[in-house]
Amino acid sequence: MTTVQTLKGFRDFLPEEKRKRDVVAQTMRQVFANYGYAPLETPTLEYAELLLGKYGKEADKLVYQFTDRGEREVALRYDQTVPTARVLAQYQNELPPYFRRYQIQNVFRADKPQRGRYREFIQSDCDIFGSTSPVADAEILAVFYAVYEALGVRDLRIEINDRQTLFGTLEPFASANLSVLSLCQTIDKADKQTETELQEELQSKGLSVDQADQLFTALKKAEMSNLLQEIVNTAVALGVPKSTLKFNPNLARGLDYYTGLIFEGRIPEYGVGSIGGGGRYDNLINQLSGQNIPAVGFGIGFDRTVEAVDQLGLLTKADQAKTQVLVTLFSLDTLQKSLETAQKLRAAGIATEVYPALDKLSKQFKLADQKKIPYVVVIGDEELAEDKVTLKQMQTRKQEKLSLIKAIAQLIKKS
Amino acid sequence: MTTVQTLKGFRDFLPEEKRKRDVVAQTMRQVFANYGYAPLETPTLEYAELLLGKYGKEADKLVYQFTDRGEREVALRYDQTVPTARVLAQYQNELPPYFRRYQIQNVFRADKPQRGRYREFIQSDCDIFGSTSPVADAEILAVFYAVYEALGVRDLRIEINDRQTLFGTLEPFASANLSVLSLCQTIDKADKQTETELQEELQSKGLSVDQADQLFTALKKAEMSNLLQEIVNTAVALGVPKSTLKFNPNLARGLDYYTGLIFEGRIPEYGVGSIGGGGRYDNLINQLSGQNIPAVGFGIGFDRTVEAVDQLGLLTKADQAKTQVLVTLFSLDTLQKSLETAQKLRAAGIATEVYPALDKLSKQFKLADQKKIPYVVVIGDEELAEDKVTLKQMQTRKQEKLSLIKAIAQLIKKS
Repeated sequence: MTTVQTLKGFRDFLPEEKRKRDVVAQTMRQVFANYGYAPLETPTLEYAELLLGKYGKEADKLVYQFTDRGEREVALRYDQTVPTARVLAQYQNELPPYFRRYQIQNVFRADKPQRGRYREFIQSDCDIFGSTSPVADAEILAVFYAVYEALGVRDLRIEINDRQTLFGTLEPFASANLSVLSLCQTIDKADKQTETELQEELQSKGLSVDQADQLFTALKKAEMSNLLQEIVNTAVALGVPKSTLKFNPNLARGLDYYTGLIFEGRIPEYGVGSIGGGGRYDNLINQLSGQNIPAVGFGIGFDRTVEAVDQLGLLTKADQAKTQVLVTLFSLDTLQKSLETAQKLRAAGIATEVYPALDKLSKQFKLADQKKIPYVVVIGDEELAEDKVTLKQMQTRKQEKLSLIKAIAQLIKKS
Repeated sequence: MTTVQTLKGFRDFLPEEKRKRDVVAQTMRQVFANYGYAPLETPTLEYAELLLGKYGKEADKLVYQFTDRGEREVALRYDQTVPTARVLAQYQNELPPYFRRYQIQNVFRADKPQRGRYREFIQSDCDIFGSTSPVADAEILAVFYAVYEALGVRDLRIEINDRQTLFGTLEPFASANLSVLSLCQTIDKADKQTETELQEELQSKGLSVDQADQLFTALKKAEMSNLLQEIVNTAVALGVPKSTLKFNPNLARGLDYYTGLIFEGRIPEYGVGSIGGGGRYDNLINQLSGQNIPAVGFGIGFDRTVEAVDQLGLLTKADQAKTQVLVTLFSLDTLQKSLETAQKLRAAGIATEVYPALDKLSKQFKLADQKKIPYVVVIGDEELAEDKVTLKQMQTRKQEKLSLIKAIAQLIKKS
């Protein structure tokens, strides 16, 4: 085989990492379902026409597209919003008027690969379509919080702002040559750059020193809008601790389609910045599909979230999915007993491997060490005669001969 | 939007269907892990060079391939065996000598779409790499059985054969112009065609009437090899009911890379034929990656399996993931109470939706009907004053005012 490598920007997930990702995805699915959100899956390939021109000119260049054997122009999924907009249009008579959906799929971007940026990565999106009610905004915040709560994150911070308020604050500083959105883009960098740097950028965009000063003063004086206040109160009733929600008048979020609430989640103990965010986007679905459907939702950065909860030591469930016991194969006489024992361990919910051949016990222990399997169950002639098993803990090397029932009880207690 | 359709051969999975698929996939993951199998994920895109020439000339035409923006020839995942062979070569120092892995990912084939054949579909593969022991063969049968047992299938049939025996039986009938594999391909159709049709095909391939007769007689007289007998006994010790395993001397399986055990699973109550199968392939990994690694495993037809267990009424878990309760929003006064109630229902593990706005009760009931949500919890002024809720069962239209604790107890009992 000539090629033994993956394409740049693409990844293999070996078992250790894959288990963690599966645990995080499954936790998300459970939380979303618990809040009444329905799963959706769309194809990896779509007509290129559907995707192009939807994300902006620069983004169009990042869409993986090609001509298939049937001369169709096709493209790989770039995000989950545009395919969902198609679904909303295509199945409008089958979908309920308030459609809560989540979608956890991989997307593809022909972007320059760099640390933490990949060409194939998972997005986890959760949205309510069809409601303009602030209760929906609040619920979206509550679901976002609930995901991280279920993952075991104690200290989540959700920064919130209202695009309307932000636009109102920035509008006096805009002009024919300087749009509110352009001002937004600069303001949005407040968490990464110093105020001096932002000042300079605003001046390079045409503001005077005084104007830039006034702009910052105006932002600092900005207060939560009534809408935002209502959303916060409702979110608190839906279980979000008040201390989690933090008004940030500088929060702008780059995407220009937000129309109301915007928010971003951070885990202060995890340094790498936003782990996800979202907001209300009441016009986008109309632009994409001609369906006049208001929407509010969020996208979670799956990679960052996995990395964060892993760093915080919260992925013990992934360890539990690993093999807990290796059952040895000692001799032809004990084979049957070993296999039956493995089945009883499995029936008790203990992930169990059988050494797949007759072999020296020392080699079987070595495999357990290599695979970091915490326990080995040995069944030799003695154990067979006494109807017992020897349970060996690999870390301490301590072993004990006991009945299978007692061994199972010990294993369940320890896992 | 001009395009509101999916590409031919590609599918959207709306919530009802997607929930079923998620339940089946999660059940598989749990069974695989319980038997000590580790999850693996490989990228959707690979170097085209890796995939081409691996599946045969005809199959090469079905590989989705294109040139990316970096002028690399790339291709979409066609199966999971070739990428796994790459993984075995690429990470040989990180992987254990006995590597049990499973992989549940979508693959792409530019095939003619037809009923039940799609261009993007899920494969669920489970294999042991590195062991030639018949214990490994038996374990693979046991895992295959355990998947369907966990899905609730009572009547699974696994037809088994040994490629060596089959080749031995067929060899006397082969010649320079008629390979054993070609004979295999005809024999393999025994479950779909009559013996007369097979006779004719054999004659068209060059056998005389007598030879064809003798071939059928030889097949009928064929007995389980010692190896197969040992595998069966071991599989039974690993929990497979003896009645599930059925020796079928005609079973050939099309793929020419099998070297020993071959098997195919069927659910007699579900008519559509094989739901998956596999066998031992000790030379393939060497051909693919230069690594001399024996292997035994299976692939499950995910779509057929979902369809089969759904037809058998075994996907009640998917229903449980659906919203169980809709909590109404009656007035601003009761809003807080409604939201807190929803949170308490969710905390009890009951999937709960909140009607996302203040609206007429009749419209809220209508939504519950439309979304087939079985229960509605109403909190009006009376309920608020009495600290109770009204629990309405939508099918019977019966309702009862009771404490939230009692309502939760009822809901848990009924789900």
